[in-house]
Amino acid sequence: MDKYYLKLAIHAAERSRGKCSPNPFVGAVIVKDGKIVGEGNTQPYGYDHAEMVAIKQAKDQCRGATLYVSLEPCCHYGKTPPCTDAIIQAGLARVVIGIMDPNPLVSGKGIKALKDAGIEVEYGYFEREITEQLEYYLCYIKQHRPFVIWKCAQSLDGKYAASDGSSQWISNPAARKYVHKVRSQVEVVLAGLKSVSEDDAMLNVRGLRQAKQPLRLILDPFLEISLSSRFVASAKEYPAMIMYHQADPAKCEALKAAGIELKQIKAYKDELDLQEVMAALFEMKLYSVLLETGNRLSEAFWKAGLVDKCMIFYGNMILGGDKSLFRNFDRHNIDHAIHLERIKVKRLQDNILVTGYPLL
Amino acid sequence: MDKYYLKLAIHAAERSRGKCSPNPFVGAVIVKDGKIVGEGNTQPYGYDHAEMVAIKQAKDQCRGATLYVSLEPCCHYGKTPPCTDAIIQAGLARVVIGIMDPNPLVSGKGIKALKDAGIEVEYGYFEREITEQLEYYLCYIKQHRPFVIWKCAQSLDGKYAASDGSSQWISNPAARKYVHKVRSQVEVVLAGLKSVSEDDAMLNVRGLRQAKQPLRLILDPFLEISLSSRFVASAKEYPAMIMYHQADPAKCEALKAAGIELKQIKAYKDELDLQEVMAALFEMKLYSVLLETGNRLSEAFWKAGLVDKCMIFYGNMILGGDKSLFRNFDRHNIDHAIHLERIKVKRLQDNILVTGYPLL
Repeated sequence: MDKYYLKLAIHAAERSRGKCSPNPFVGAVIVKDGKIVGEGNTQPYGYDHAEMVAIKQAKDQCRGATLYVSLEPCCHYGKTPPCTDAIIQAGLARVVIGIMDPNPLVSGKGIKALKDAGIEVEYGYFEREITEQLEYYLCYIKQHRPFVIWKCAQSLDGKYAASDGSSQWISNPAARKYVHKVRSQVEVVLAGLKSVSEDDAMLNVRGLRQAKQPLRLILDPFLEISLSSRFVASAKEYPAMIMYHQADPAKCEALKAAGIELKQIKAYKDELDLQEVMAALFEMKLYSVLLETGNRLSEAFWKAGLVDKCMIFYGNMILGGDKSLFRNFDRHNIDHAIHLERIKVKRLQDNILVTGYPLL
Repeated sequence: MDKYYLKLAIHAAERSRGKCSPNPFVGAVIVKDGKIVGEGNTQPYGYDHAEMVAIKQAKDQCRGATLYVSLEPCCHYGKTPPCTDAIIQAGLARVVIGIMDPNPLVSGKGIKALKDAGIEVEYGYFEREITEQLEYYLCYIKQHRPFVIWKCAQSLDGKYAASDGSSQWISNPAARKYVHKVRSQVEVVLAGLKSVSEDDAMLNVRGLRQAKQPLRLILDPFLEISLSSRFVASAKEYPAMIMYHQADPAKCEALKAAGIELKQIKAYKDELDLQEVMAALFEMKLYSVLLETGNRLSEAFWKAGLVDKCMIFYGNMILGGDKSLFRNFDRHNIDHAIHLERIKVKRLQDNILVTGYPLL
């Protein structure tokens, strides 16, 4: 039954997806005499971790019970006290853990603290599943940068726009709604200036109830964004940031007054240094980015090796013409093609979503 | 129960798919007192139709029984005598028909013949399903040309080849095997000269047991095909035809000697008149064509409105570069995009097949 209860904990964790960063979203279940006496998932940053929620629910019944938790419990003081202390004090007899937390503040130390207190500990279950579930967090901890999801919408014949530039809408309403759901689950939605200047994009989450709004981030090397864009106009309502390289101080002031946060970043020629962009986001403890970039900025991210996951939406249309992605991200020969692993295919009415992890 | 038995007849028909042209593949079930006493599917051209197979199986039990058949029974002498006569003679009391046969030799006359003989007749069931099942035949009868399936293989970013031209293999073995299955179910596999000159393609069915071989057809306006190509070398083993416009008589003779059938076709500039190609195939009683054409010839078929069904295979790779389909089949604006109806999505391991019917 261990696997059954651990699976419940993994499912419980999903309830906190996108709602507790920079903490990982974790699930916990407490079982005593074959009965579930507590269940929890990570609360928003600064509030209880999953283990604490479950312990508070189980109360006295924790004594001698088993705790199932998807990620190794923390053993350090962060915004909250260590979970290991609470587990020990509650009198739990056994702890079954999905995966170890690679965070150097925890990594194995949580397990050791429990064992030292005489608690029976097992770990290493559903590793593939939990590793994928916590992919944002694990990338952030291990690679010291946010997890990057690249998203695009193409016609069936691989065009991101008709030859006259029109592209609204290649994706159907179901696909566009799905994108809003993904936006609500990431910390940052990133686009180039063109998204604002050509599509007047807001990049916020719309059409979902009680959705978390991501930080909307525009890369705009010379701060050319229009003050009358919807992006700027909505900056007091939805968090907005612009990363730039060089700018007129008056424009900076005007944007700040509109509620936009500005960050200066190194640049090569007319492109911001994407490694610096990532470093700045890491600094800000943001661990996931959705790229809603046009062709040119997309190419730059791919060239920099900064794509962890792809979401390719195929709209139900044939467009023809020559507006196909990646003209300048040319693999030359088929032997140098980039393959995706763990491909998933999802139908969204007559649209198709392919997700996968590029082997860069 | 009528629908249940008719569904069985529709399933029985599938056993003859691609094996009885130019006859449609039909299924029949005979039921007496709630028991199936006969079942049949169309035999190869010149042999028994589905109804006859079922009647021969049911023998005396036909008297007073009900016949379920996916397509209206024929009432004319073709290679075999009329099925309606056999139905009447067998003493069947009731006939439930899926759809009427639009073939003017039958259309309604089969039903009338049965009714005139005092048989109770009903028809018009599963029309959408049977119309799709018999799409090749129905196109052939109604439009006086073969049904045309356009097939392509693309990378996830919509490239049919890497920028150096390499394209073997964009599709994985499962997808390629699937193509061989489709080849075995059509009458004609059509390609341009390039498939032979660049890929040395055979265009036959391989890797399937007891598969019917289609007619392999190359459009080669100036009969430039190499006599040493595998296509030519295999012409005595697998049926092969070349349609051309102008040619050196000696080359014609050499190809004929190799076992290739030649057909002269009108041309505009350096392209064969595709309507003439279709007319020639109709003349030959061939009712389905699989296009395995490169970009340029594909564009010509699309421009001519000669695509009834699409099969788009997506290989698991990102190729970049500029080799994307339909540069010259440009819809200009998204409002003029071509949409597909009845989209189906099939996974072939890590490849994806999208099929649909273009609304041209």
